[in-house]
Amino acid sequence: MALSTMIHNHLPTTLSTGVNRISAIHGHQEVVFDLPKTNKTSNRGARRLAESLSNLLHLHIEPPSSRKNLQLSSWDLIDEEKHNTPTTSPKELVADKWRDIHGSMDWDSLLDPLHPWLRREIVKYGEFAQATYDAFDFDSFSEYCGSCRYNRNKLFEKVGLGKNGYKVTKYIYAMSHVEMPQWLERSHLMDTWSKHSNWMGYVAVSDDEETHRIGRRDIVVAWRGTVAPSEWYEDFQRNLEPIGVGDAKVEHGFLSIYTSKNESSRYNKSSASEQVMKEVIKLVQFYQGNGEEVSLTITGHSLGGALALLNAYEAATDLPGLHVSVISFGAPRVGNSAFRDELDELGVKTLRVVVKQDLVPRMPGIVFNESLQRFDDITGTLEWVYTHVGAELRLDVSSSPYLKRGFNPLGFHSLETYLHLVDGFLSTDSTFRSNARRDVSLVNKACDILVDELRIPSCWYQLANKGLVCNEHGRWVKPRREPEDIPSPIGEAHDHNLRIEMQESYQMSYAS
Amino acid sequence: MALSTMIHNHLPTTLSTGVNRISAIHGHQEVVFDLPKTNKTSNRGARRLAESLSNLLHLHIEPPSSRKNLQLSSWDLIDEEKHNTPTTSPKELVADKWRDIHGSMDWDSLLDPLHPWLRREIVKYGEFAQATYDAFDFDSFSEYCGSCRYNRNKLFEKVGLGKNGYKVTKYIYAMSHVEMPQWLERSHLMDTWSKHSNWMGYVAVSDDEETHRIGRRDIVVAWRGTVAPSEWYEDFQRNLEPIGVGDAKVEHGFLSIYTSKNESSRYNKSSASEQVMKEVIKLVQFYQGNGEEVSLTITGHSLGGALALLNAYEAATDLPGLHVSVISFGAPRVGNSAFRDELDELGVKTLRVVVKQDLVPRMPGIVFNESLQRFDDITGTLEWVYTHVGAELRLDVSSSPYLKRGFNPLGFHSLETYLHLVDGFLSTDSTFRSNARRDVSLVNKACDILVDELRIPSCWYQLANKGLVCNEHGRWVKPRREPEDIPSPIGEAHDHNLRIEMQESYQMSYAS
Repeated sequence: MALSTMIHNHLPTTLSTGVNRISAIHGHQEVVFDLPKTNKTSNRGARRLAESLSNLLHLHIEPPSSRKNLQLSSWDLIDEEKHNTPTTSPKELVADKWRDIHGSMDWDSLLDPLHPWLRREIVKYGEFAQATYDAFDFDSFSEYCGSCRYNRNKLFEKVGLGKNGYKVTKYIYAMSHVEMPQWLERSHLMDTWSKHSNWMGYVAVSDDEETHRIGRRDIVVAWRGTVAPSEWYEDFQRNLEPIGVGDAKVEHGFLSIYTSKNESSRYNKSSASEQVMKEVIKLVQFYQGNGEEVSLTITGHSLGGALALLNAYEAATDLPGLHVSVISFGAPRVGNSAFRDELDELGVKTLRVVVKQDLVPRMPGIVFNESLQRFDDITGTLEWVYTHVGAELRLDVSSSPYLKRGFNPLGFHSLETYLHLVDGFLSTDSTFRSNARRDVSLVNKACDILVDELRIPSCWYQLANKGLVCNEHGRWVKPRREPEDIPSPIGEAHDHNLRIEMQESYQMSYAS
Repeated sequence: MALSTMIHNHLPTTLSTGVNRISAIHGHQEVVFDLPKTNKTSNRGARRLAESLSNLLHLHIEPPSSRKNLQLSSWDLIDEEKHNTPTTSPKELVADKWRDIHGSMDWDSLLDPLHPWLRREIVKYGEFAQATYDAFDFDSFSEYCGSCRYNRNKLFEKVGLGKNGYKVTKYIYAMSHVEMPQWLERSHLMDTWSKHSNWMGYVAVSDDEETHRIGRRDIVVAWRGTVAPSEWYEDFQRNLEPIGVGDAKVEHGFLSIYTSKNESSRYNKSSASEQVMKEVIKLVQFYQGNGEEVSLTITGHSLGGALALLNAYEAATDLPGLHVSVISFGAPRVGNSAFRDELDELGVKTLRVVVKQDLVPRMPGIVFNESLQRFDDITGTLEWVYTHVGAELRLDVSSSPYLKRGFNPLGFHSLETYLHLVDGFLSTDSTFRSNARRDVSLVNKACDILVDELRIPSCWYQLANKGLVCNEHGRWVKPRREPEDIPSPIGEAHDHNLRIEMQESYQMSYAS
């Protein structure tokens, strides 16, 4: 019997809360495949991924051993202590270091050991990206499915980033002319805010206090990603498209999301590219016009990291002389080596934060072969096609005592896992930072990777009663969204108001 | 190719929120098997159930058709209107009808059409049973997993029954010496409130106002059930045990839960039977001693309905002359015909509320054969063994315009579905009651059976962030349970306090 057949036949599947888990024993180590809850097709894809991976890794798959009762232990003490520690360190003045932090020296000698200033700034930008997940409306019974649950003025406050020193100035929407698996969230309803567009990110700008601390006016673009990109493989294998005027080529699915528009659409009469560039150019001109030093920092996780690179390429081309950097998390390869070389020439500084165990940054490179039964590592043949850019901060799941051992694609790829590992990273030779302060519980928001001893439920980030509330008559109803939080293309187009806001803010800061 | 093989090979499985769904097409009707999220074994069992059933029903299984976008329609209007209607009707005085309501005439001519007084009382008792689910702690990372989340004084208030006119006097705990599949919820932790016992129900008594309305002091016992009893089959086939001194026999799993105790246990030094009977006898003696008329009404859903019958058998035996009635929902058969005959002789009045499509009330009777590949309807051979008792109120899922068509075992068995159908039932010849007021949204609390047009999410009854809350330091932690809500065998044993409470309440009601 062929190994693949044997594995297939013995593959046990069990259900836990919203997650399909496939377990295997590799030596003495339990290997757990956590597959995202999602539609049938992608579930099949995810299972194939698990099967193929286990085949590649020569795992002998067995039913998981029964869970042992947890011992109360020193974990309790750790727990108690941690509960009363603030989650953030005091902010330091990094005004004279910002160029280093953003890659002027290509992060040389700053990554290993990781410089504390840099660690803090990486987490800051990662939390900008995390906000795009936390505020996203995934409710397929809502007419606002695929939008942001809050208007731009409330976003940071609602996701716990009210004190981050930035202000959102613009929301970005995207659509795609090509079928890119699993990026678009769609409502089941007929009458929806938009049929083809999703909220895809936002532009924000540092306020005066933060600007003072970080040494320049910082414009941030945060791009939303997707949680389960296992089905990008096939798309990757086929499709590279030219970008710019040279030999640079990039994956056509990412490019389509970045550039697609449609006259009859409400939110994408202009493309994501046009929306973001219009806003960025306006902000840059405004603040440069006031004599300020300005930087553009683009961030994103997964698909969002890919869009960040496309955005950086365009911004650096259109705004020569502007300091453009990308801090991406778990991003796949995006383009060919000419794309990388052009980014270098344009002066785009890219820091890729990568978890060693995460599969996505290895895409493409590990792909399914045609039989879809096993992985082929075809890095050798694809390397010349898809190339990573910039510097890499490499993290290791096994460095954290809070994370379970075992194979867990969803957990490895989760942005909260990334932020936890950045927070705890000292150097490749050191153990996890003992005074790391970021809340460990956050890691399990949308996956199941924290050790059981912490007693944090898996996938705990959820609304009470899925958003239903009991009204004064005792009926459970879905409340209407606040009018101010209902997406509106007109509201988004009101740049006029923003300009006035900026002027006022600027005048006030100089008057005071 | 044999049909069963073909079905097995083509059986598609998809994941939705916490529910494994298997779909089949039967003619033009989609048939949906909703399988409970649970452990691997039971999931296999549930799938076998679905497979075997589809075989039995000669279904040709195909992948489900893709979901169509929902049209906004008259549902919106219905929705709007319903949102502003109170969920309860004004309470009427039924003091002179209570014996009829509780079966003195064996509910002759009260069930079809269903008398409005009776409908209201059936829903009242059903909500007592529903409270045992709503307040149960299912969190396997909690040291209180398997207990009630609130102490007895807060229970009704917390589950929205604060105005029901009853007061909980005692919690009941159960354990089992025999392995009964899927009844015990266990914590993963080592240090837990109890290793082998679960909160299994409670005793309550009507307050003076309700006593006045319903014409007698009503003692209620509500028994908790289980949600997914598909694995009882095998147990049923083998094991009948004697109860009482005659020929009566009952299923040994149910009897074990009702009667098991263990000296070294904290909550079951006495059995559920001993706990409930001690409390009931005390209450009966107290109120009868004060010259009041007293009734005992025992309710429960599923397994809880089976325990209700055992409890009624014991109460009627030990308290001759007491009016004992059972109102059960979706209960399986419990014992043999001698058991039924003895219940009759003891004067126990039983109203079984049964949804026609629910499989559980047909248990045993439809069981797996040994190959576990298909159903055998062995009613013919088992009928003499297991016999239903009392009168039946038969409901039909297809009578409600709010419920999806298609096979949905979890939805059919759910107590909230039962209560919805009771609320809408006029007679077998009538359509759904147009002025039914019970909140339809409740039906989807723990299943997925409401039509999509209502836009009520499936399985929506859930805690915000699975019970984690953000503390003052910005950390997400599981709050400790309020000391007053921590189960305590000592607290439960403090009958002394209760007696004082009763005395005071009694004296006050006579003083006023």
